Amino acid sequence: MKFEVTILGSSSATPIFNRNPSAQALNINEHLYLIDCGEGTQQQMLRFDVKASRIDHIFISHLHGDHYLGLVGLLSSMHLNGRHKPLKLFGPPELMEIINLQLKYSETTLQYPIDFTATHTDNAEVILENQDITVESIPLDHRISCTGFLFREKKRLRKIIKEKIAELDIPVEYYSAIKKGADYVSPAGKLHKNLDITISSEEPKTYSYCSDTLYNEKYFNQIRNSDLLYHESTFLNNMLERAQSTNHTTALQAGQVALITGAKKLVIGHFSARYKTLNELLDEARSVFPDTELAIEGRTFVIGK
Amino acid sequence: MKFEVTILGSSSATPIFNRNPSAQALNINEHLYLIDCGEGTQQQMLRFDVKASRIDHIFISHLHGDHYLGLVGLLSSMHLNGRHKPLKLFGPPELMEIINLQLKYSETTLQYPIDFTATHTDNAEVILENQDITVESIPLDHRISCTGFLFREKKRLRKIIKEKIAELDIPVEYYSAIKKGADYVSPAGKLHKNLDITISSEEPKTYSYCSDTLYNEKYFNQIRNSDLLYHESTFLNNMLERAQSTNHTTALQAGQVALITGAKKLVIGHFSARYKTLNELLDEARSVFPDTELAIEGRTFVIGK
Repeated sequence: MKFEVTILGSSSATPIFNRNPSAQALNINEHLYLIDCGEGTQQQMLRFDVKASRIDHIFISHLHGDHYLGLVGLLSSMHLNGRHKPLKLFGPPELMEIINLQLKYSETTLQYPIDFTATHTDNAEVILENQDITVESIPLDHRISCTGFLFREKKRLRKIIKEKIAELDIPVEYYSAIKKGADYVSPAGKLHKNLDITISSEEPKTYSYCSDTLYNEKYFNQIRNSDLLYHESTFLNNMLERAQSTNHTTALQAGQVALITGAKKLVIGHFSARYKTLNELLDEARSVFPDTELAIEGRTFVIGK
Repeated sequence: MKFEVTILGSSSATPIFNRNPSAQALNINEHLYLIDCGEGTQQQMLRFDVKASRIDHIFISHLHGDHYLGLVGLLSSMHLNGRHKPLKLFGPPELMEIINLQLKYSETTLQYPIDFTATHTDNAEVILENQDITVESIPLDHRISCTGFLFREKKRLRKIIKEKIAELDIPVEYYSAIKKGADYVSPAGKLHKNLDITISSEEPKTYSYCSDTLYNEKYFNQIRNSDLLYHESTFLNNMLERAQSTNHTTALQAGQVALITGAKKLVIGHFSARYKTLNELLDEARSVFPDTELAIEGRTFVIGK
């Protein structure tokens, strides 16, 4: 099953040429899930061939503009482009009020329903479950209410060993039950134990998205052992005080989060516009956690690879 | 006095790669006036070196997203970049409600005051007057309340003929009065009539910004003899019905507006995303009004040239 994330934007609030504010497109089994939607996300989607028509889920972490100011434009474009299928939207409770006010004054009635789920920061919650994944909100520690999102693949079915299918001539009608763990009894009455004719599929993978937040152990347990951890890294550690006063994280701290929580791989982003080049941020995070990469617009990370 | 306009965005609501929604930066005597502020305007300002710190006036024509969704991001960036001087904002009455709601939920108190003037569509009004210009709202005919803006240079002072200054040794303290029309009496008591020692300065120029609107004669009188007319031109004339049903104008009609109102030059913009190239739109407008140009991102038009 495809499980990968494409970076659409990686900058923090103050604009910088050629970096866009936060947005990521997650491809889960060929369905697109959009995480945050900073201003200009639609242009980035056009640039990197992320089709709005394939997005059925949008997650907004919080109501600072660099994380959602592209949303109303995207919702309007979906409307103008003839969308009718429902859209599931997740974000702070006040988000719908903002959207509805803007739609009201543009006298727009969307042609498709928005199914809104409010996120909260008092407790982690499962906010979505479908055949491919579960999604949990991750309460973070920011200046205003902010949640990250934890995408967890569902346990996949076992795989039938190809050679056994041929050898035992297993009829196709049995595949589904065997993949779910059933034994197989041949027409001659011989029992073949499930473990002898199947192998385990890959372990389910997890993707944790943590932006924006102060370094705070309260969310460490929830994101433990992420196959891919995206963590904000607004400043270098020589600006630790500024990071703390603005409820942000330094690159060094992002590396520490990855190390302590046992992430397999770390991607850092949400870079302050003061950093024209990002090498120092990368080096600093890697000094603690070597398997770190930069969230650069257009890069795609396969989760678990 | 500098009087020129730089196109920052020229597309209509549905996004298209490499065209941005409506925004223009007007340079009047080295002060910047922003007209409309579609999503991504900040990136365009960075691209074309339009400094936000030099903008003291912003005009929003109406509350369709492609004309204002970049505004809250820009206001926030001005705040983050330490602005303290006031900003004059002009737009539909509901605009401040939208801004205030978004600032409220991001828990942002701007460090600078916004001096807001509501525009109305019942009558044209002078909404700004300063030493360089007057600005009038132009009631247009769109699906929701929408005004254009007419920028009119003030009559400039007369210029003292250089040779007369030398010949008569006119003291510098008299310049201001003479420029305003006073005669000059030399220390020896000789009268020099103002008309003999000065020349008229250039005629004041006007710039009319008309977007979005149905072709409607009601605003023709007000924009008569514009030195530069910007007029929306969303469709080709073979889509006239669509233009009419969405309260927009075709390229042919934009040419007709320029012709009928006696514009010196026409710039067309607000192009539908269906037009990947713009030549046909340009040709159509030029078939009626030859001195037509395309609003292309990054182009600067000197008003009156």
